Amino acid sequence: MQLIKKVFESAKVGSPVVLKGWVKFMRKSKNFTFLIMNDGSCQKDMQVVLDPSMPDYDNVTKHGLGTSVSVSGEVIASEGKGQSIEVKAHKVEIIGTVTEDYPLQKKATSLEFLRENAHLRARTNAFGAVFRIRHTLSQATHQFFSEQGFYYIHTPIITGSDAEGAGEMFRLTTLDLKNPPKKDKGEIDFSKDYFARETFLSVSGQLEAECLALGLGRVYTFGPTFRSENSNTTRHLSEFWMIEPEAAFFELDDVAKLGSEYIQFLIAQALEKNMDELLFLQERFEPGLVEKLQKVVTSTF
Amino acid sequence: MQLIKKVFESAKVGSPVVLKGWVKFMRKSKNFTFLIMNDGSCQKDMQVVLDPSMPDYDNVTKHGLGTSVSVSGEVIASEGKGQSIEVKAHKVEIIGTVTEDYPLQKKATSLEFLRENAHLRARTNAFGAVFRIRHTLSQATHQFFSEQGFYYIHTPIITGSDAEGAGEMFRLTTLDLKNPPKKDKGEIDFSKDYFARETFLSVSGQLEAECLALGLGRVYTFGPTFRSENSNTTRHLSEFWMIEPEAAFFELDDVAKLGSEYIQFLIAQALEKNMDELLFLQERFEPGLVEKLQKVVTSTF
Repeated sequence: MQLIKKVFESAKVGSPVVLKGWVKFMRKSKNFTFLIMNDGSCQKDMQVVLDPSMPDYDNVTKHGLGTSVSVSGEVIASEGKGQSIEVKAHKVEIIGTVTEDYPLQKKATSLEFLRENAHLRARTNAFGAVFRIRHTLSQATHQFFSEQGFYYIHTPIITGSDAEGAGEMFRLTTLDLKNPPKKDKGEIDFSKDYFARETFLSVSGQLEAECLALGLGRVYTFGPTFRSENSNTTRHLSEFWMIEPEAAFFELDDVAKLGSEYIQFLIAQALEKNMDELLFLQERFEPGLVEKLQKVVTSTF
Repeated sequence: MQLIKKVFESAKVGSPVVLKGWVKFMRKSKNFTFLIMNDGSCQKDMQVVLDPSMPDYDNVTKHGLGTSVSVSGEVIASEGKGQSIEVKAHKVEIIGTVTEDYPLQKKATSLEFLRENAHLRARTNAFGAVFRIRHTLSQATHQFFSEQGFYYIHTPIITGSDAEGAGEMFRLTTLDLKNPPKKDKGEIDFSKDYFARETFLSVSGQLEAECLALGLGRVYTFGPTFRSENSNTTRHLSEFWMIEPEAAFFELDDVAKLGSEYIQFLIAQALEKNMDELLFLQERFEPGLVEKLQKVVTSTF
């Protein structure tokens, strides 16, 4: 089994391939059928040519969007526009079918619909693009800091401290809320709670990172952080992943340089590895996106 | 400013260097003083030669273990055993001093002491070794799965589900425990809680990962997980980081192959990048460690 991404990157015309993924659509023409499939590995779909002489042709071509398939065939040069290669199928196996009311359709699915149908998100172009770019940015984060001599540390999430007082915290407890143990004066007896004290979800790994930087030299966190603020803005989340570098012996200029190089490295990696995804997002959501990103990479901060 | 690790890896005799770190010890001989320092970037200490003609020599050599210093000098060939290079100081600046009761001493610090003095851990050889190896294994995890076509996903920590029922959960709440809102029958009214329902810390990202794998193809999580079990064994923690790969179209053999290759890649990376750390741990904690690891890498599972 090959990933479609790898086939586009390096497979030569004539190579045998086995692809497994989901049908995006089935386009019938007079003499053959195109099966357009995606396996999540990249934004681009693979076009598979089904010839009527193929075993089980009539059954296979009955199925459409969402069907899970295994395609055995060989790479051929494409005559279509927008791709250099396609696959000529020798055999297509239907792995899983969908019912007629399968909710995704050929036209773009609204984000509002996907908000309530989270399990289908990853099968859409929009979320596929976002997840693949997020992957690139995460990998780039680790690569960047590692190359700069920063050690990746995992700071505690469960804490009794409120760090630098960065935000409202969620309480963590295993007490029975209906009948919590109380002390004489009616206060909750947290000595009976799981950690024998009050505990919360951390709002920052900064304090631990500072300690570790004073021995390891340079460290960074990349983990989830929590705020229980009732701020319904696009800039506030209850749960989000945050990167916190701490470096011994760094001056302000070092920090500024690190920050700007980091941002530029992230964007350069996305431009290098996810141009198909960025072009999709540009077309669908934000005109001028790619040019804007290229400008950040080439600007001096 | 250079990291000691980089100087050991690539600096040539005669190169100017500026090192910033902490004094491990100060060894005086008849004609000069050795300042042994570490900056956390690697297990090996750098030996710095202080000549009495150096400015401020008498003051600098008064200080000892724990002192924070900036050393300007040049790389010279070492006559000592166990290292090929050392640094001849032109100037040493004392950045920060320690009091006489600084708790770390030249002899090994006990793990029991460090349990209660967590902020000092990173300055010890043992924890430095563990943190640097952990870094290597974390980076290797991302590299391995990324190269195998897996996308790194961040699954929710705050959840209303108990995943596959893997363990006891911590409750998350912003209710006032002393006076929680109650419904008519005396039940807690969780509609008044932060998320308007009961919420917990996730015991697994598996359910989300399965959904995403059915669109992205191959995904993995690498994030914190929580269990509120009262199991005081070395194999149970309330909070730990876990890796969960999920792959569409994988058969049992694919999973077994992925698992064994992953383990071997992790260990091979540690052997390649952290031999100094492993040799330290072998000497201090586990005889035969390196040979045992090498055997895992070269064995067929």
